[in-house]
Amino acid sequence: MTPFTPPTQDQLLAIKVNAGIGELSQSERFAAAEPDMVEAIVEGVGAFAAGEFAPLNRIGDLEGAKLENGVVRLPDGFEAAYQQYVEQGWNAIASPEEFGGQGLPFTLACNVIENLGAANMAFTLLPMLSVGAIEAIEHHGSDAQKSKYMPKLVSGEWSGTMNLTEPQAGSDVGALRATATPIEDGEHAGKYLIQGQKIYITWGEHDLSKNIVHLVLARLPGAPEGSRGISLFLVPKYHVGEDGSLGARNDVRCVSIEHKLGINASPTCVMSYGDNGQCIGELIGAENRGLAAMFTMMNNARINVGSQGVQIAERALQQALYYASDRVQSARAGAPDRTPVAISEHPDVRRMLLRMKSLTEAMRALLYYTTGQVDRGTLGDTAAGARGDVLVPMIKAWGTDTGIDVTSIGIQIHGGMGFVEETGAAQHYRDARIAPIYEGTNGIQAADLVTRKLGLENGEVYAALMADIARDAAEEPALFALAGDCAAIATWMRDQASLDDKLAGSVPFCTMSAVAVAGWQMLLQKRAVEAGEAAALAAVKPVTTRYFLDHVVPEAAGLKAAATAGSALLYELTAEQLAG
Amino acid sequence: MTPFTPPTQDQLLAIKVNAGIGELSQSERFAAAEPDMVEAIVEGVGAFAAGEFAPLNRIGDLEGAKLENGVVRLPDGFEAAYQQYVEQGWNAIASPEEFGGQGLPFTLACNVIENLGAANMAFTLLPMLSVGAIEAIEHHGSDAQKSKYMPKLVSGEWSGTMNLTEPQAGSDVGALRATATPIEDGEHAGKYLIQGQKIYITWGEHDLSKNIVHLVLARLPGAPEGSRGISLFLVPKYHVGEDGSLGARNDVRCVSIEHKLGINASPTCVMSYGDNGQCIGELIGAENRGLAAMFTMMNNARINVGSQGVQIAERALQQALYYASDRVQSARAGAPDRTPVAISEHPDVRRMLLRMKSLTEAMRALLYYTTGQVDRGTLGDTAAGARGDVLVPMIKAWGTDTGIDVTSIGIQIHGGMGFVEETGAAQHYRDARIAPIYEGTNGIQAADLVTRKLGLENGEVYAALMADIARDAAEEPALFALAGDCAAIATWMRDQASLDDKLAGSVPFCTMSAVAVAGWQMLLQKRAVEAGEAAALAAVKPVTTRYFLDHVVPEAAGLKAAATAGSALLYELTAEQLAG
Repeated sequence: MTPFTPPTQDQLLAIKVNAGIGELSQSERFAAAEPDMVEAIVEGVGAFAAGEFAPLNRIGDLEGAKLENGVVRLPDGFEAAYQQYVEQGWNAIASPEEFGGQGLPFTLACNVIENLGAANMAFTLLPMLSVGAIEAIEHHGSDAQKSKYMPKLVSGEWSGTMNLTEPQAGSDVGALRATATPIEDGEHAGKYLIQGQKIYITWGEHDLSKNIVHLVLARLPGAPEGSRGISLFLVPKYHVGEDGSLGARNDVRCVSIEHKLGINASPTCVMSYGDNGQCIGELIGAENRGLAAMFTMMNNARINVGSQGVQIAERALQQALYYASDRVQSARAGAPDRTPVAISEHPDVRRMLLRMKSLTEAMRALLYYTTGQVDRGTLGDTAAGARGDVLVPMIKAWGTDTGIDVTSIGIQIHGGMGFVEETGAAQHYRDARIAPIYEGTNGIQAADLVTRKLGLENGEVYAALMADIARDAAEEPALFALAGDCAAIATWMRDQASLDDKLAGSVPFCTMSAVAVAGWQMLLQKRAVEAGEAAALAAVKPVTTRYFLDHVVPEAAGLKAAATAGSALLYELTAEQLAG
Repeated sequence: MTPFTPPTQDQLLAIKVNAGIGELSQSERFAAAEPDMVEAIVEGVGAFAAGEFAPLNRIGDLEGAKLENGVVRLPDGFEAAYQQYVEQGWNAIASPEEFGGQGLPFTLACNVIENLGAANMAFTLLPMLSVGAIEAIEHHGSDAQKSKYMPKLVSGEWSGTMNLTEPQAGSDVGALRATATPIEDGEHAGKYLIQGQKIYITWGEHDLSKNIVHLVLARLPGAPEGSRGISLFLVPKYHVGEDGSLGARNDVRCVSIEHKLGINASPTCVMSYGDNGQCIGELIGAENRGLAAMFTMMNNARINVGSQGVQIAERALQQALYYASDRVQSARAGAPDRTPVAISEHPDVRRMLLRMKSLTEAMRALLYYTTGQVDRGTLGDTAAGARGDVLVPMIKAWGTDTGIDVTSIGIQIHGGMGFVEETGAAQHYRDARIAPIYEGTNGIQAADLVTRKLGLENGEVYAALMADIARDAAEEPALFALAGDCAAIATWMRDQASLDDKLAGSVPFCTMSAVAVAGWQMLLQKRAVEAGEAAALAAVKPVTTRYFLDHVVPEAAGLKAAATAGSALLYELTAEQLAG
């Protein structure tokens, strides 16, 4: 596996052009996000990721997380690297200053995650999950809970988890059965006894952080059925005194960890709460409002999962570029000089490399455009906040699907070596495969787009987005046409009486929409570079943009028929007939 | 992992409609391929594959092939299953009757491989590679060599390998350095001393068969440089007496086996020939004509690799259909009944299932259309033979790319369970990834299509194919348009002075071409079913065909811009600039 070189210049361009960091820093809240600070963070975390996280990526895959007598062990080096991460303050970028955070834009916290995740996707799930816990407590916890838990979560000394899934409750969170029983008397009066089993708990158990704050969805006695009867509880691995000191171990344990296709260094735990009837939790927010609380942090978590597509694509790209420049094989076809050349000189390998690079940059452009809208929303710009909401399923679904495509091309460029594990290309391909699944499958994302997000402000939020693209793409016929197609399909979607008809076309429509926005944001990057931004990218950006507009955008247009085909064909056969 | 159910009805339909077995059996040579015989083979090998090969698929992945003191060990059960395979005569379907074969059409041998490979892709590489050795000796060996080696290769008692690749000679076979030195005197006079190392040798060492016949490309002293100086040698693992008896071990050994992403039960060997200067080989065919000899078997091998896309897709489809029918989660969106349903009832899961099924059947239709053309070529129909040549890169490249897509959808349908190895969906995804790489990467296939196959008979072979499609698709606007696009791009390709411009668009063009032919063959299946063929498929086939024509064909049309974009953009940047 080749070392990781942070794509600092392209990140800075995206943060500037797509997220619009300059505008954000003009607000009082984000005034600290000045150019020097932004550069210091992007360069600093890039160097840290390359130096500390990247060298652990291969060993993390080979040895993986191991459960021994209830304790999860990581390979040598993970603990020291995590301590460094905490000490350098990278966990605290976007958290509130009153709890030791830096109060910087979400955009910059995403850049921290992007760099760390490109260096080591499995490891970076640890801080990613902690962000969710921080946000839940910040937005829904009491003052006492905040002062008790926030400082050490913000610093990273403690980590966090999200506990939704149970064996019978996956995408259908409302089917969960874990229970919470109020404690009437004694030391823990006012708290709850938690009981139940949760699966797929990322970094549910480990000893890299001194405590683990589990956020657990469970049902109170007599709660309504389904998703309206779910409450959110905070369950610490070690009890925490009012002064923040660590007490005894809580009654929660990791029963087993999954043997997975990838992200082997990330322990995916089956967690058992209250085996001995002694698992104590605190209610976060209002009773029966747990799912809403979870959803407030879900948006940002989905963006960070979309970012994993960018991360793994960047890493696979670097690996492929290295190999293709190093591997000499055959002379150029048709060239008079019969000297063998690096395979990067052959047209189809060059095409694959350019495709990988163009897709990676376009995903990044969409990622930071999304984070910028979220940051504007935080500043009170409700239109931008709503646009951010529309963009979330796009970056999550298209970003992660494209992450797989790019890592697959990366293997292909390596030829036989790509299928041999020691090269490293195969790990990226395996790691990438989880991202379309977790944090809401990409099917759920597409459903979110067509059933909820398309309806925002009677469709005006989505329509305005496509209108903006069409306005800027007047001289780019393929992109202009795609934005028009998307707008027309959105209207078609809203006109369908049948929810099935919308859902049947939701995934291709989501892809088309994402490609339209990503192409637009690449176009804006290209124009900025042509106007003098990011001199280092002056040669590259017009080419990667052209590739995206001339190759990727027309491909997306080919999905139009599928997006508007309706559901009749899907149900012409019963499932039994399909299986027949 | 779910059991394997042979898709007998769809295979019989494809063998009848797409391969045209009825016509083939009217020839004297293939007269034995009557309907009863065809059914007996397809049903028989299906049952054998399901009963003997499929149960070993998971353990083969988990335990894999292991090299211990130079001996490759397979998990328990492989040896017994292989013996059963030999005893039942499945290896001998298409081989000449004079050597114990059944002399049946290649189409039926492909069906044997399709069923075995769907049951156990890694294991089936053993008989697949033997076929190559059989063909090479059949077409290029002397009578003495044939009588010495063919009977036991045909029966399967001995297996075969193909040895092309060396570390510096992958796609560029002409760069190989292994040597063959004539032996002047003694016991082995007239034979050759072979020296060199070969990599990626599939089933290069094992003890399932009693002997291994290695076919090795090497250079004679003073041979011309490059691909015109390569000769083909037969190197047995154990020397063979003139009476066919096994003698001493030859000086060839397996140095190591690769740790791979998938097909773990298939030992991928580094083979060392002549470490002690005692490796004896026989020349097969003429001096310096080794590459041509290899190519005669390459076409059929490429078809069988394309078939691996069908195989792994079929297996992933069955796994996904089972899971989606078994897994209950959420009520139908928008339905008044709030009872949770099997996920196969949700529109997007249904879409994914139908997509998997439609793609799998379309690949199979293209596969058997190709094998039918090859069989006609064998019977002396040179037009069909040439058409078969044009189809080979399509089934190899598109079949294997689509195999990956289908297995990826299979994981997605499983949600989190798809990423957990014990489910089995992940193995299909890992196994599938090799097929676009070996037997000539898919980039090489696309290059073969645009540089060699498009030129056959001044382009008439390809043009006639597209004209046939257009004729039959008069009432299918999307397919009609795609065939027209393909024909136009073929003309554009031939008009380009620059080889780079052709190669730059070769992969998208190959995909478009394959989708056009596969769509056409599905249409013919559908019409046959509507006319009364295969009553069991009367409900299914029109739906899977419609999906392919209305969804997949328009997507392929979206590749037109990429196919004709030329190479200028690819070379605007140097590789160094791309690497940033």
